[in-house]
Amino acid sequence: MAEEEDKPTTPGEISSAVDSEETLDPQNWNDMRALGHRMIDDAINYLQTVDERPAWQPMPKRLNQQFDKPMPEDPTPAEEVYEEFLENIFPYPTGNIHPRFWAWYMGSGTILGALADFLSGTMNSNVGAGNHVANLVEGQVINWMKELVGFPDSASGLLVGGASMANLVGLAVARNTQAGFDVRGQGLGAGQKKLLVYASTEIHSCHQKAVELLGLGTDGLRKIPVMDDYRIDMSALEKAIVEDRQAGLQPICIVATAGTVNTGAIDPLNDIADLCEKEGLLFHVDGAIGAVAMLADSLKEQLSGIDRADSIALDLHKWMHVPFEEGCALVKDKEGHRSTFAITPEYLTRKERGLAAGREWFSDYGVELSRSFRALKVWMSIKEHGAARYGRMMERNVDQANYLGSLIDSDPDLQLMAPIGLDIVCFRYQPKGLDEQALDVLNQEILLELQEQGIAVPSCTTLKGHYCLRVAIANHRSTEADFDLLVSEIGRLGKQLTA
Amino acid sequence: MAEEEDKPTTPGEISSAVDSEETLDPQNWNDMRALGHRMIDDAINYLQTVDERPAWQPMPKRLNQQFDKPMPEDPTPAEEVYEEFLENIFPYPTGNIHPRFWAWYMGSGTILGALADFLSGTMNSNVGAGNHVANLVEGQVINWMKELVGFPDSASGLLVGGASMANLVGLAVARNTQAGFDVRGQGLGAGQKKLLVYASTEIHSCHQKAVELLGLGTDGLRKIPVMDDYRIDMSALEKAIVEDRQAGLQPICIVATAGTVNTGAIDPLNDIADLCEKEGLLFHVDGAIGAVAMLADSLKEQLSGIDRADSIALDLHKWMHVPFEEGCALVKDKEGHRSTFAITPEYLTRKERGLAAGREWFSDYGVELSRSFRALKVWMSIKEHGAARYGRMMERNVDQANYLGSLIDSDPDLQLMAPIGLDIVCFRYQPKGLDEQALDVLNQEILLELQEQGIAVPSCTTLKGHYCLRVAIANHRSTEADFDLLVSEIGRLGKQLTA
Repeated sequence: MAEEEDKPTTPGEISSAVDSEETLDPQNWNDMRALGHRMIDDAINYLQTVDERPAWQPMPKRLNQQFDKPMPEDPTPAEEVYEEFLENIFPYPTGNIHPRFWAWYMGSGTILGALADFLSGTMNSNVGAGNHVANLVEGQVINWMKELVGFPDSASGLLVGGASMANLVGLAVARNTQAGFDVRGQGLGAGQKKLLVYASTEIHSCHQKAVELLGLGTDGLRKIPVMDDYRIDMSALEKAIVEDRQAGLQPICIVATAGTVNTGAIDPLNDIADLCEKEGLLFHVDGAIGAVAMLADSLKEQLSGIDRADSIALDLHKWMHVPFEEGCALVKDKEGHRSTFAITPEYLTRKERGLAAGREWFSDYGVELSRSFRALKVWMSIKEHGAARYGRMMERNVDQANYLGSLIDSDPDLQLMAPIGLDIVCFRYQPKGLDEQALDVLNQEILLELQEQGIAVPSCTTLKGHYCLRVAIANHRSTEADFDLLVSEIGRLGKQLTA
Repeated sequence: MAEEEDKPTTPGEISSAVDSEETLDPQNWNDMRALGHRMIDDAINYLQTVDERPAWQPMPKRLNQQFDKPMPEDPTPAEEVYEEFLENIFPYPTGNIHPRFWAWYMGSGTILGALADFLSGTMNSNVGAGNHVANLVEGQVINWMKELVGFPDSASGLLVGGASMANLVGLAVARNTQAGFDVRGQGLGAGQKKLLVYASTEIHSCHQKAVELLGLGTDGLRKIPVMDDYRIDMSALEKAIVEDRQAGLQPICIVATAGTVNTGAIDPLNDIADLCEKEGLLFHVDGAIGAVAMLADSLKEQLSGIDRADSIALDLHKWMHVPFEEGCALVKDKEGHRSTFAITPEYLTRKERGLAAGREWFSDYGVELSRSFRALKVWMSIKEHGAARYGRMMERNVDQANYLGSLIDSDPDLQLMAPIGLDIVCFRYQPKGLDEQALDVLNQEILLELQEQGIAVPSCTTLKGHYCLRVAIANHRSTEADFDLLVSEIGRLGKQLTA
């Protein structure tokens, strides 16, 4: 920061420095109003024409310098800040708003979801505590999520930034309620048995982070092999639990994945629920990808048994297309949930009247005390579309995955590499006469060309040692024609690259 | 959810159910455009006239039923959803946007901050990973924060939901790098010494949550008494560390608070830094309230030594007035930070080209993998106002705290209950002839009447056994007249209630 005293000051700056009326509000509300209207038009145009732009594009090198400048000491008119946004930021999104973006696993967002974030920021409510309406809205949204997965009214829940946090909440409750000693009070000290969490090798990496953060250690997460369909091997799971108990260790929880990130596989939820009952373990479901498919009549059968979970992590910024960040933790044992997190410091004592009254405080159910009104965009979105339309959108994505599968099957140069799970398709370009290493290199190059030419954005994974293209269709803007284009462009690029 | 097949369907619904063009985009973009423009006007009017409304108001009872309805199966036009928002949600914010809201410790927000959230939601970028501009923007914002506190370029950082998470990040790094064994890999198992974190009794409750989550146990947080000025007692701290070592326990970290939540006290940062150096402990600063005061020339002296910390937690949704949620974790030992959190699963392997290239991934430095573009509202806000204006706003709040202090001093019925720390004033109404219990009851009632009548929103705390009104002035809209009104209304209510 520049030294203020070294700078020549203009009369305007002096006046500003002593102006008792100075605030962070606009000096001219009408100018800000006009700017807001411009933003609405620009954003609507941006989303309305998203399919006319590349699915993704690399940034020009000059941007590295652009974002390498020190903190500005002096103000810039909001209009100029916005011009810089328009020139240097708006054109370079991640890409998941585009109809042919199928990388990793993200939602597409919606315009009303973004507008809801604007309204939420305008109110700037803090949904950690207190007697105000945002708490009621979050309560309603959580009730909807409980309804979705078949959890009882008595269950508790919390909106969080995403499933990484929602899974951490579930595992923290499992640790604290299943350890058999006062983990919260005494910590994971000497003389206690090692606590173990079980899941398949296909589990999302956030669970490793969670067990490590909770002090259980990387080796506190037992990764059980999967079957050919990428679902957990139940007999290996059962055997591991028995052996660990015999070795003096203490199993506390099994995590089932409802929609693995690699192939969309759904672990056998009822079998795992049975095993948890038999073994006295908590049953956590990582439903980041698949749990919301309960909204789709033709898909919910695959999730049978999810209501038997003790806790579930959901992501609403994935297949529900709520803008980032939006996850949800649900816990059947409300008291166990609350007793894992609740703290009532003196200055936050609950009251019967005034601001400090109201429903239970959400901050008693998770890590954060101050919490944004992220419930509003879920509430407005679900009202706007209704549950049935979300179900149809998911069914269409699954249909599209199977359509892509049929295109792959009928193309001699393409090979499906795993069963299609929900909306995730793993395959590769596989012309005759290339060895495995050459196929890996070729498919890597196809992927990069697809992305760099702005055609489409699959991602990749490795299954059973083979590099694959991976298409995860959580996208409400994709059409069949987009998959026709994908397959024809892969063919074109493949031929070009092998020529 | 209603069973779809049981309902009579209208031709419109049938057509919709089979419409391959159905998306979550608006059926009519122009209608949505018009709605967006309405929202801009309504939001600007809302903030422009906020001082004409009550500082807080209780909700009508009917709202409890309003938000108790099941998930809707069918769509509602976005305009109707917005009407419901206008009627039932918009009028009942937490209140921290109002010039006379001084409860807990929250920022006021700004209109450009809220608009930035709209733009961020429109792009819907995922700042966990990948080669796109949002990562550069977050990198720049973090560099600004490092610049602010005097951290070197080599330090790492992460924007998070708030200081609860930022403190958790700092303590996780402390645990993993200071334990002397492989906490991450093996967990906090048997045979290890108990790890201890030190802080004053005035520390924020989120640290208790953090040590509990990390498996250190409530008793892994040693709370050291404070002096009369509510700063940590250094000799008691030093003695506790020595005694704990003698008892075979293992100190790892001291947490200093730069702005306690009760009274705004700032622990002696240089003394604690010296002690940490001497004892070989990590030095973490919880700067949620006060760290950003480094922007104010007249205040930064009080934070001398903050640059000597190993890690700092900041909140930008407090005194920087960025809309919720916005916190920042800074860590001087970048490798220790990364090695605490980084996981590189197969399907997220870094690349030299394409979407998966780009700068280091922020998800390697914290809990969440998917992350929103929350950097944008900080970036736009700091550009809009410049660092110097933020400093002036903070100085004005501190001046206002001292002005309120002078009003209290000159009023025989009011009593200051603690030294004024930064912008926090604790006091009570204390007419002659009332015992301590009666004073507690009287001041509680004054607080509730202030809130319920919509006059002003202080909160409360208890200091040395005395119930106090607590005014925390992180508010860019407050003026001197607001404090005149507060004092005169307390006098009016006090006389009324004691009559």
